[in-house]
Amino acid sequence: MKCCETIEELRSTLQVWRCSHPDGSIGFVPTMGFLHEGHASLIRRSAEENQLTVVSIFVNPLQFGPNEDFERYPRDPERDTRLAEEAGADILFMPSVKEMYPKPVVTKVMISGLTDKLCGASRPGHFDGVGTVVSKLFNLVQPDAAYFGQKDAQQVAVIERMVEDLNIPVTIVACPIVREADGLAMSSRNVYLTPEERAQAVVLSHSLQRAEAWFDEPDLTVGEIRRRIAEHISSSSPLAEIDYTDILSYPDLENPSQDVPIGDLPGSSRYIAALAVKFGATRLIDNRIYTVKGR
Amino acid sequence: MKCCETIEELRSTLQVWRCSHPDGSIGFVPTMGFLHEGHASLIRRSAEENQLTVVSIFVNPLQFGPNEDFERYPRDPERDTRLAEEAGADILFMPSVKEMYPKPVVTKVMISGLTDKLCGASRPGHFDGVGTVVSKLFNLVQPDAAYFGQKDAQQVAVIERMVEDLNIPVTIVACPIVREADGLAMSSRNVYLTPEERAQAVVLSHSLQRAEAWFDEPDLTVGEIRRRIAEHISSSSPLAEIDYTDILSYPDLENPSQDVPIGDLPGSSRYIAALAVKFGATRLIDNRIYTVKGR
Repeated sequence: MKCCETIEELRSTLQVWRCSHPDGSIGFVPTMGFLHEGHASLIRRSAEENQLTVVSIFVNPLQFGPNEDFERYPRDPERDTRLAEEAGADILFMPSVKEMYPKPVVTKVMISGLTDKLCGASRPGHFDGVGTVVSKLFNLVQPDAAYFGQKDAQQVAVIERMVEDLNIPVTIVACPIVREADGLAMSSRNVYLTPEERAQAVVLSHSLQRAEAWFDEPDLTVGEIRRRIAEHISSSSPLAEIDYTDILSYPDLENPSQDVPIGDLPGSSRYIAALAVKFGATRLIDNRIYTVKGR
Repeated sequence: MKCCETIEELRSTLQVWRCSHPDGSIGFVPTMGFLHEGHASLIRRSAEENQLTVVSIFVNPLQFGPNEDFERYPRDPERDTRLAEEAGADILFMPSVKEMYPKPVVTKVMISGLTDKLCGASRPGHFDGVGTVVSKLFNLVQPDAAYFGQKDAQQVAVIERMVEDLNIPVTIVACPIVREADGLAMSSRNVYLTPEERAQAVVLSHSLQRAEAWFDEPDLTVGEIRRRIAEHISSSSPLAEIDYTDILSYPDLENPSQDVPIGDLPGSSRYIAALAVKFGATRLIDNRIYTVKGR
């Protein structure tokens, strides 16, 4: 695996590879590092489906709010390098902030509509930062396919729309959430949790799991399922502080009417329940997609 | 010359060409059509410097304000097709608005700072529309080089900054302004002018020409040169209504202090005088770049 820290090095490495592999396809896995099994699953998938896999590790300041955890976001470049290579990466791109943003940022890729709910509502500017850095990385790597974890469901929806709107020549591949044995969705931020918080954090996936049955009850309304999810979280975990529990149409992320019984929603339509819950200063997210059966 | 009206047709045509010309470079000339000798000079330059030249004709609604001339912007696809082919275009891309914007536009490329002066000040949102459509076209064509007329000096500066900020793999080539025999900068909008307006419109280039001598007078201030340019326009052309006459550093487009004598500006530094002047409902722009000699 070749490690590149500069844009020039990355570009020349890719150019050499392209010249010797004119028909080769390039898969790309953009990450913020502190890799876990979720990232590894994306890298493995890319390595299976492409001749070359590029992984980037860049904690992007542009997508963190002023009071968020940019400075203390966990970093471990040595372990990441080993993990990326083991999973099948061919090129690891680890630029500095200065390398990615040598000048004040005046150009931004802004995606409206999709970004004003869920994490976009509690993290204003977050998705402009994501759209901007992902655009830059796509222009640098020029991949055929890019792999994202479904855990960041809104991020996937936003990037898919950006790629469509800007005609970016890349296929977005959304990959399933990878979970710990007890159900907790893997996240680089899980290391922040105290043992007690870690034990209670399982409440996110458990509540989403329970909702599977509620989505099968045709007389329950969307609002009632939301209330039950929130209630389950609050009653099972005294340390949990809910940021949001939302149910939206998927993949458009539109708000359905809260009073509609599940049985009256169009059969086979899909809905996503998405959660953001804080444990102390640590904010965790999780989601699950449900297919409505109709009456 | 091959004409493409759909994105699919353009992409497949380019793919076939790329396969048979693995080392061929692609030049791109994005236009809004109603081609004149200025556009032809860009197409010829691209054809000289590349193996394939793509010209696009698309009147982009996103860069017109609600009270601007989108609907009545002049169009002549048949003449344009002939002109593009004569100048050396290999592929002409003429998409409909529906083809370029099949869905409501939620993704925009916004460039701040550079865009709040000159035309950006009098046409709010204009450069977001330019940045967005040029990003889309670059992603569709994936050219090695793109050719723009220096007449839209601010547009060139904005696109150069966008390309740099977003790491878009394209070289921007700014080409000299092409003028009518009497000095009027060529523009698709010149056809709007009545014979009387057309005769007076020469005042833009004449005032910029005069300023050449004023930039050689070390004791004149920036503000005084601006005043003289404006005075020359108003006194020579009763039909002229000035939108702006500005002098900015080039290429950064920063405002120099208005009280600084030319002789005190750093030697060899460059300044651009940029004008926007209305004749009736027709808004014309022109500019010229001056190099300061120092005392």
